Amino acid sequence: MWLGAGGALRLVRRCLSTSAGPQIAEEVSRLLELKAQLEDVAGPQKFTLKTPKGTRDYGPQQMAIRADVFNKIVAVFKRHGAETIDTPIFELKEVLTGKYGEDSKLIYDLADQGGEILSLRYDLTVPFARYLAMSKITNIKRYHIAKVYRRDNPAMTKGRYREFYQCDFDIAGQYDPMIPDVECVRVVKEILMALQIGEFVVKVNHRQLLDGLFEACGVPTDKFRSICSAVDKLDKSPWVDVRKEMVDEKGLAPEVGADHIGEYVILSGGQELVERLLEDKTLTKAKSSRDGLEAMGLFLKYCNLYGLQDCVRFDLSLARGLDYYTGVIYEAVLLGETKNEQGESVGVGSIAGGGRYDNLVGMFDPKHKNVPCVGVSIGVERVFSVLEARLASSNKKVRTTEVEVFVASAQKNLLEERMKLCTELWDNNIKAEQSYKRNPKLLAQLQYCEEMGIPLAVIVGESELAKGVVKVRQVETRQEVEVPRANLTEEVRRNYPVSSVKEVN
Amino acid sequence: MWLGAGGALRLVRRCLSTSAGPQIAEEVSRLLELKAQLEDVAGPQKFTLKTPKGTRDYGPQQMAIRADVFNKIVAVFKRHGAETIDTPIFELKEVLTGKYGEDSKLIYDLADQGGEILSLRYDLTVPFARYLAMSKITNIKRYHIAKVYRRDNPAMTKGRYREFYQCDFDIAGQYDPMIPDVECVRVVKEILMALQIGEFVVKVNHRQLLDGLFEACGVPTDKFRSICSAVDKLDKSPWVDVRKEMVDEKGLAPEVGADHIGEYVILSGGQELVERLLEDKTLTKAKSSRDGLEAMGLFLKYCNLYGLQDCVRFDLSLARGLDYYTGVIYEAVLLGETKNEQGESVGVGSIAGGGRYDNLVGMFDPKHKNVPCVGVSIGVERVFSVLEARLASSNKKVRTTEVEVFVASAQKNLLEERMKLCTELWDNNIKAEQSYKRNPKLLAQLQYCEEMGIPLAVIVGESELAKGVVKVRQVETRQEVEVPRANLTEEVRRNYPVSSVKEVN
Repeated sequence: MWLGAGGALRLVRRCLSTSAGPQIAEEVSRLLELKAQLEDVAGPQKFTLKTPKGTRDYGPQQMAIRADVFNKIVAVFKRHGAETIDTPIFELKEVLTGKYGEDSKLIYDLADQGGEILSLRYDLTVPFARYLAMSKITNIKRYHIAKVYRRDNPAMTKGRYREFYQCDFDIAGQYDPMIPDVECVRVVKEILMALQIGEFVVKVNHRQLLDGLFEACGVPTDKFRSICSAVDKLDKSPWVDVRKEMVDEKGLAPEVGADHIGEYVILSGGQELVERLLEDKTLTKAKSSRDGLEAMGLFLKYCNLYGLQDCVRFDLSLARGLDYYTGVIYEAVLLGETKNEQGESVGVGSIAGGGRYDNLVGMFDPKHKNVPCVGVSIGVERVFSVLEARLASSNKKVRTTEVEVFVASAQKNLLEERMKLCTELWDNNIKAEQSYKRNPKLLAQLQYCEEMGIPLAVIVGESELAKGVVKVRQVETRQEVEVPRANLTEEVRRNYPVSSVKEVN
Repeated sequence: MWLGAGGALRLVRRCLSTSAGPQIAEEVSRLLELKAQLEDVAGPQKFTLKTPKGTRDYGPQQMAIRADVFNKIVAVFKRHGAETIDTPIFELKEVLTGKYGEDSKLIYDLADQGGEILSLRYDLTVPFARYLAMSKITNIKRYHIAKVYRRDNPAMTKGRYREFYQCDFDIAGQYDPMIPDVECVRVVKEILMALQIGEFVVKVNHRQLLDGLFEACGVPTDKFRSICSAVDKLDKSPWVDVRKEMVDEKGLAPEVGADHIGEYVILSGGQELVERLLEDKTLTKAKSSRDGLEAMGLFLKYCNLYGLQDCVRFDLSLARGLDYYTGVIYEAVLLGETKNEQGESVGVGSIAGGGRYDNLVGMFDPKHKNVPCVGVSIGVERVFSVLEARLASSNKKVRTTEVEVFVASAQKNLLEERMKLCTELWDNNIKAEQSYKRNPKLLAQLQYCEEMGIPLAVIVGESELAKGVVKVRQVETRQEVEVPRANLTEEVRRNYPVSSVKEVN
């Protein structure tokens, strides 16, 4: 345990052999303090004006696209009667420990500032399970749209960031088989249809079937999860590479295991495949396979009743990376291809995924009481990439405000009149703005309306003031009418009835 | 600089004298590693099922209240033509350094995991200024609703948390005096009216006037900010305590400075106070005072034009804690008192605040180019506290879903029929749900509707199935009508027209 150079570590060594932990902690904090002092003395470093690696600001245009996407997604969640919750952005580190396998190294930790040891959330599922156990909730249907954090190597052109949104929908509770599970796929279908993001298919499989397949092919039980994570790579790598990983890296015998698995994972289909596999003597010698196949049969039957027959495909190559799945697993993939301005392909591949995880809540409950859960997560960042690429190539502009009326003045010294008009419009719940200059030029004001897509301009000038009228101008057609000042609100509402006004974002 | 005990620090001392900083960093990271190993050896600590100190989960009821509050606030922001942006939850630490004075110790730092040195955002204003400088934006009117983080001592019954929402509205750009400034107050008024949170007053003052007052009272220039932060405490402490702080802690001569200041900071009023003070020979001998008073005069004049005369009060005791304000400052306070279930007073005091900060953007610009800004922040956590307390004492329940129809079955073995009915309803954009059990009891299904406030139940039974009808039941009145199966959607929409459907949150 001796680490070499520096008298600085002598004390540490003594602590380790005598379990004098607190002393180490004390020394560490003193050293950190000294380090900080040293940095102060060295003076400020060259200042870099940037956001942290793997993150970015969202400007008004991007936010408008996001708001539209979230509105469509939330509408579907609400159509299915989901409630929403929120949890803190960070958790006690121990809440996240042991939940993400080898991806745990990607978790952001907070500095130890003399309190609890905290980490930023890595997904929304583990905090959800912690919430259920802590609040002793045994059934809930909830959605959660929030940011999560991963210290991954960002591939930002492909929509992969260190800070990104997840949109989760989960159903927790002790219910009858496959009824909540199939509703999650229905939710995915409704969302992808609402987003008009292109053709897609939802691949489905079952963890029990995979386990039964591994058992039938002679994979030792302790290798199930690592072989499963090799299978998971089939959507990106050819079978020959996956086989190599199984045999060379994970030590699976080629003849007994790997080649056999290879015969099954190329299979995909529907109900008829379930029936064919139920006849397969090798596969069905494992009880898990039979259970998994029967569950898939029921799942596919319910899919028909929920109108999902055309978009669901039973696919034995689907494995999903996370350890905690225990039943059905699914993944929606886009079939088309979208390119960004640089001609690079974006957003292809997985756009939603999820499955059943019946044992996660029990990991938090003091008595290990489980709450069965099934859920799905929408890959909204991919959706944004696809929609932004599409928007850029269409040359269209998204409006970033909802202003209905711009209050303009035709001459100088009319700021007070403009202020009175704005007050009247705001009092009547009309979205209105004006220039922040005392004496703006009329042309500049009208150009602003055109740029911002504001539909109406109300123009006040000296002659109008004398006559007790204002001009109402349709910005697009440039048509103007004179309206008695007292009828202004009425005239605006005639053009833009309240029912057409979207007030919430 | 010798820190005593432990050979562990000998190397450090050498480093300090020889500027061998990197060596310290290396030693620190080794010690931290050892500390972690020590913790591993000690085995897992007793697991505590909790959220981090000063944070909490938001359940469906709280989220429903929050969604309603945010909708009302966003509606006002949009009525004034604001766009929205978002920035990462963390920034390079150096972005936050030197912006918050003595509150900097409350900043959450991220652990140094071998990349950039990051901190969680402390407010939305500094990231906004960084965004403007980085994106070279010279004018924007934006709102931003997001969480911020402060390692404060939480007073959770009073709605003070370590993770909490801020709702900011800011106008950036080189404009004519006081026109954007007064619109911010108009926005505050509209929001507080929309939230029906009770009577309030918006106190206003001007940093230049305060500086002039300090100058006139003989406060040395280098003490302006610290005396200002003492004055800021007048809303919580009596004058005698604030005077003591000025004299004893901050070393201000009692006769020359403190007592003089005391004569002014008790003053409050309107336009007439501005005029009276403009006649005050002591005060107006400082140019800053004259400029500040003239600015206040213009501000109050515009307030009248924006219909704010009844809720604005010019108040010389208002100082605001933050260093970066350069012009008008304001703070809205609730006049009533709301108590929570325990009879403790909640949400009294400041509910919104802000001001002009013309030099903050320049701190980020490589050429120190400034973008003048003015803005206001709504204290939504206080709003939530008040509304939650009010709701609790009224015994009312907030609906947490928007389900319009529950699909129920009167006998066993009707799951498939229920699934078909749900599919039809969802296809027609009707918010519907059903039991996740194969054979739920009718009574249990109807009770669920009553508990959740679902207005309609569609009931299918064997006799209805035979006749090709379904029963539509008004849950509240328990009235039932039989409707031909083919007319179901139409019947539901007759009861709940689409225009009444709120789809977005």
